[in-house]
Amino acid sequence: MLLNILSRRLVSMALIGLALCGLGGLGALAQDDPLPSWNDGPTKQSIIDFVIRVTAEGSPDFVAPHERVATFDNDGTLWVEQPIYTQFAFAMDRVKAVSNEHPDWKTKQPFKAVLDGDMKAVAGMGEKGMLEIVAATHSGMSTTEFSDTVKQWIETAKHPRFKVLYTDLVYQPMLELLSYLRANGFKTFIVSGGGIEFMRSFTETSYGVPPEQVIGSSGVTEYRMWDASPVLVKMPKVLFVDDGPGKPEGINHFIGRQPIFAFGIPTATRRCWNGRRIACACASWGWCITPTRCANMPMTAIPRSVSSTRPSTRLWPKAGPW
Amino acid sequence: MLLNILSRRLVSMALIGLALCGLGGLGALAQDDPLPSWNDGPTKQSIIDFVIRVTAEGSPDFVAPHERVATFDNDGTLWVEQPIYTQFAFAMDRVKAVSNEHPDWKTKQPFKAVLDGDMKAVAGMGEKGMLEIVAATHSGMSTTEFSDTVKQWIETAKHPRFKVLYTDLVYQPMLELLSYLRANGFKTFIVSGGGIEFMRSFTETSYGVPPEQVIGSSGVTEYRMWDASPVLVKMPKVLFVDDGPGKPEGINHFIGRQPIFAFGIPTATRRCWNGRRIACACASWGWCITPTRCANMPMTAIPRSVSSTRPSTRLWPKAGPW
Repeated sequence: MLLNILSRRLVSMALIGLALCGLGGLGALAQDDPLPSWNDGPTKQSIIDFVIRVTAEGSPDFVAPHERVATFDNDGTLWVEQPIYTQFAFAMDRVKAVSNEHPDWKTKQPFKAVLDGDMKAVAGMGEKGMLEIVAATHSGMSTTEFSDTVKQWIETAKHPRFKVLYTDLVYQPMLELLSYLRANGFKTFIVSGGGIEFMRSFTETSYGVPPEQVIGSSGVTEYRMWDASPVLVKMPKVLFVDDGPGKPEGINHFIGRQPIFAFGIPTATRRCWNGRRIACACASWGWCITPTRCANMPMTAIPRSVSSTRPSTRLWPKAGPW
Repeated sequence: MLLNILSRRLVSMALIGLALCGLGGLGALAQDDPLPSWNDGPTKQSIIDFVIRVTAEGSPDFVAPHERVATFDNDGTLWVEQPIYTQFAFAMDRVKAVSNEHPDWKTKQPFKAVLDGDMKAVAGMGEKGMLEIVAATHSGMSTTEFSDTVKQWIETAKHPRFKVLYTDLVYQPMLELLSYLRANGFKTFIVSGGGIEFMRSFTETSYGVPPEQVIGSSGVTEYRMWDASPVLVKMPKVLFVDDGPGKPEGINHFIGRQPIFAFGIPTATRRCWNGRRIACACASWGWCITPTRCANMPMTAIPRSVSSTRPSTRLWPKAGPW
């Protein structure tokens, strides 16, 4: 909603611009700036320079289109991750929604804390408690049922601070970056610690990233017959954790080749930078290119948004709800 | 090589045709027949009818391009699988190649049987023996080393009967089908019981299927530091078996949506056909469309090639080395 308001403002400004400058001027402006919501500066310029270099035929840095793989983290990179991971907000809402089927949860932790709205107690139970909540709300149903439940939630649940849908809290500058890369022949992937099936319910609509280009943590599914119909049942068992060292493992498992642009993926980027002992002056929360091209490229850290656990507004794009 | 010879013959025939009919006639012929190596008949016609229906805007069967997912089995569908799975031929060659590092293999089964060339004894040891051979030859190295080894083998190893590279034993009619589907906006995937990293070393060159569209059985990898450089190490531990019920599970895990065209994937096709209790008169080795469209579509079984364990030449395409 906030983004819609911003979009409407931009449209108004565009119309004013149109009146002042004429169609030609505006057209040229739009064409010249593929990342209009980004602050002008070395970060934006180095991204544009990189894209020009890898796409210009005859350039020593040219990369064939089929090798132009770009990977993006999700939480805190493409959309908000504060005050808690969105998927965990979904899980807690599900605990409340199905609690009447589990009367024991009223006295059993970590469910009691969720039902009491005691976030301090939930946080105090750490990863173990979090995993119990996720397992209880992400298994025991078919993949289709789960996907339908997530879709329904994502279309109605509101962010506690901004009071808008979570899909209205995606970062406009990142949408522009995704589009800019795709317009230049890149295949854009999400590589996130989040659940793969949770993300796939909205990434195509929100980011233009189809389900087959979403990589995430995943549980075991089992092919079974239910009421004489075959279904895939989500089991309470982890298949793959796409976090930390799991990110390069996940990239290998799902994509099978190294990205030339990795955004907000610290392990993968460190692997990329250090993999062939080339020292690049760049922070772990940055973007990377293949090591062979690394030495010749300007590298700049791109801090995460102020809504992140690592706040910084120094270089962060000017538009957006944060 | 055999295919090269066939290709040369086809070029010669084309040149004769050119002399007889003139350029216009030949051009029209090529345009009119997207599957020139297929026998004319109901199978070929039903595939063409299906593609026309799902791609014609305004058609009740129209499918948006991003949902045009086509999946293909590999062994026995896209290339030969006789006398043994090609990947197992690779594994046995690797046992021989590294046997000097394992002196105990001379007396230890199943390796002894491989080194003695005693195929009957290898077969007698069944799946357990086969898995031991695969584990010993597919783990303990980095993913890059493994991929390099497979590439080197695939560029040199010859099929025992046809005496040509395995990549010369892909089925020409299937290459045409893959191209035809892609030209009509389909995204083509391989969904095979074979090893994902083994297949990815040749699918892009041989089939035009990029690594990120290859789904297969996979082992666990571990992100580690070797000589101060990070690598992904292939572990002797199965992560995922993409066979039998594993095929629909793998499609869900990697693609996240249902194919509208599944070729040579019995479980997935049965799931597709039976999933919503629509009875279609089609064999398990066929192709399928989404259940909602199933009732209106002509379905025909497409037998596998004579090189398969289920031989049939009845409807199988006319060109190729079998």
